[in-house]
Amino acid sequence: MRILDKNDIQNNFDFDKAVEAIRMAYISASTDNASIAPVGHLSFPDNNGDCHIKSGHIKGDDFFVIKIATGFYDNPSLGRPSSNGVMVVFSATSGEPVALLKDEGWLTDMRTGIGGAITTIELAPNNAKNVLLIGTGLQCRFQADCLSRLSPDIYQYSVWGRSLRNAKKACEDLSSKGLDIKPATDLEEGVKKADIIITTTPSTEHIVRNSWVSASTHITAIGADSLGKQELDTDLLHRADLLVSDLNSQSLDHGEFQSIKETRSALSPIEIGNIFNKTEGGRLSEESVTIADLTGIAPQDIAISGTVLL
Amino acid sequence: MRILDKNDIQNNFDFDKAVEAIRMAYISASTDNASIAPVGHLSFPDNNGDCHIKSGHIKGDDFFVIKIATGFYDNPSLGRPSSNGVMVVFSATSGEPVALLKDEGWLTDMRTGIGGAITTIELAPNNAKNVLLIGTGLQCRFQADCLSRLSPDIYQYSVWGRSLRNAKKACEDLSSKGLDIKPATDLEEGVKKADIIITTTPSTEHIVRNSWVSASTHITAIGADSLGKQELDTDLLHRADLLVSDLNSQSLDHGEFQSIKETRSALSPIEIGNIFNKTEGGRLSEESVTIADLTGIAPQDIAISGTVLL
Repeated sequence: MRILDKNDIQNNFDFDKAVEAIRMAYISASTDNASIAPVGHLSFPDNNGDCHIKSGHIKGDDFFVIKIATGFYDNPSLGRPSSNGVMVVFSATSGEPVALLKDEGWLTDMRTGIGGAITTIELAPNNAKNVLLIGTGLQCRFQADCLSRLSPDIYQYSVWGRSLRNAKKACEDLSSKGLDIKPATDLEEGVKKADIIITTTPSTEHIVRNSWVSASTHITAIGADSLGKQELDTDLLHRADLLVSDLNSQSLDHGEFQSIKETRSALSPIEIGNIFNKTEGGRLSEESVTIADLTGIAPQDIAISGTVLL
Repeated sequence: MRILDKNDIQNNFDFDKAVEAIRMAYISASTDNASIAPVGHLSFPDNNGDCHIKSGHIKGDDFFVIKIATGFYDNPSLGRPSSNGVMVVFSATSGEPVALLKDEGWLTDMRTGIGGAITTIELAPNNAKNVLLIGTGLQCRFQADCLSRLSPDIYQYSVWGRSLRNAKKACEDLSSKGLDIKPATDLEEGVKKADIIITTTPSTEHIVRNSWVSASTHITAIGADSLGKQELDTDLLHRADLLVSDLNSQSLDHGEFQSIKETRSALSPIEIGNIFNKTEGGRLSEESVTIADLTGIAPQDIAISGTVLL
């Protein structure tokens, strides 16, 4: 059984291979080619913590993966990161444990970054130029970095956050990777100018207002991943010409679209796997407003683990 | 993060500490002191395999445990064991991974042996002398060895199996540990003489008939752990003066008592944790027939992992 720590994992990592694997993971999830166990959950109320267990297998893959992710939200006050976890990889032909990936959450961050970037590229208007990142944390960096690696020298980036200082810090980090990027001081103005908006906040109230969003815009919403989280105005969700999810069951249950499932009957977003697979269409016209909500799915974890092991 | 292999685990293992921990685990499970996630399940029909994920936390414990157990039933024909798996131990205060226990299933075998032995001792008639083991596999050995360590020099053991050769082999292995043990050639005669019967087979049809079982007998049934498995005659289950389980939800769903839940309305066995805790009584009289069905529960896994780490 191989034991890989974060450093080993980063050294073994092949970005292009991971991009292709994650595109296939979305297709598998939307075409019944993945078997996914329900998410297991344990809570630790005395220590403000929780644990999620995601597991699944993509048909035909040599491996299956159990991902155990913890969040203990008082850790930062003690100088420790709040997120942690491991992935355990098993042979799908013999049941033997093959590898322990002590990624400390890095593979999850990377698969989220890649999933966002390929979805954004798939759905963005052809003439898109201005990308606005809302939120200044780790996912702001992963989303922008992955998008820029896949579409180099095409976009101009700006970053808005509640703290201008944090937005400036994110710009410094991303410019050092070669991005054309600057902080946005006014959110409304930033949204009005943007052709692509990527939201990565843990907000529980909408940040992006419908009236600010121009025609010919694509939004990738990453932040909402549990009950009560919301980044986009419900009017904006109702107005969108196209709603896309990674997995409808998750998006409607605990993703961005939970906020409109009561008011929009028979809501059935198109799953991105079906767009990648060309069984569903994507953007309808250059003028459309498109919104993709990504909650993160087990097949992404399986796919990215596989690329580190091969 | 500590990585312990089977050898390390066996070297660190303290039997007496594990016995006490497992007794407390049963009590925790029956008194709402354990939080247990539903069992996760993945199947691999192309390779005749499955994977079960059990996880839970006993309130107040420093650790929580995720046990990943695989069974790939074509492995033996390729010279590999069918069972495998690991336990992953996390801190319940910080969410950090603490240890990987590569026990290859040994801790599960041992916690099952100890759970059976303490249940058998709790429910056996006072004057019990003859113990009949039905089944000749690993659990025959673990049940007899654990019982003998906890009640040395009290019982005379016999072993019955479909293969007399396998029964003889089990007797050789167990006599080398000091047990007074011999193979049983006739099942009916063996059951009639037995004061304690321990069944450890994967049978899907009853092996023990009601008419063979004398008054003043205790039966511990270990084998039935999934849909369709059954070791005891349903008439015998109906006749028993006391039915005991490790966890009623599991026993009625996929344990020995699944066979009578349709015919015995409002069936509610007594959980062994409540007997250990003295909130429920155990054996009613020396003449009673008592039956305990043990399906194996996550708190046993947590408890035994904890004793290896401390």
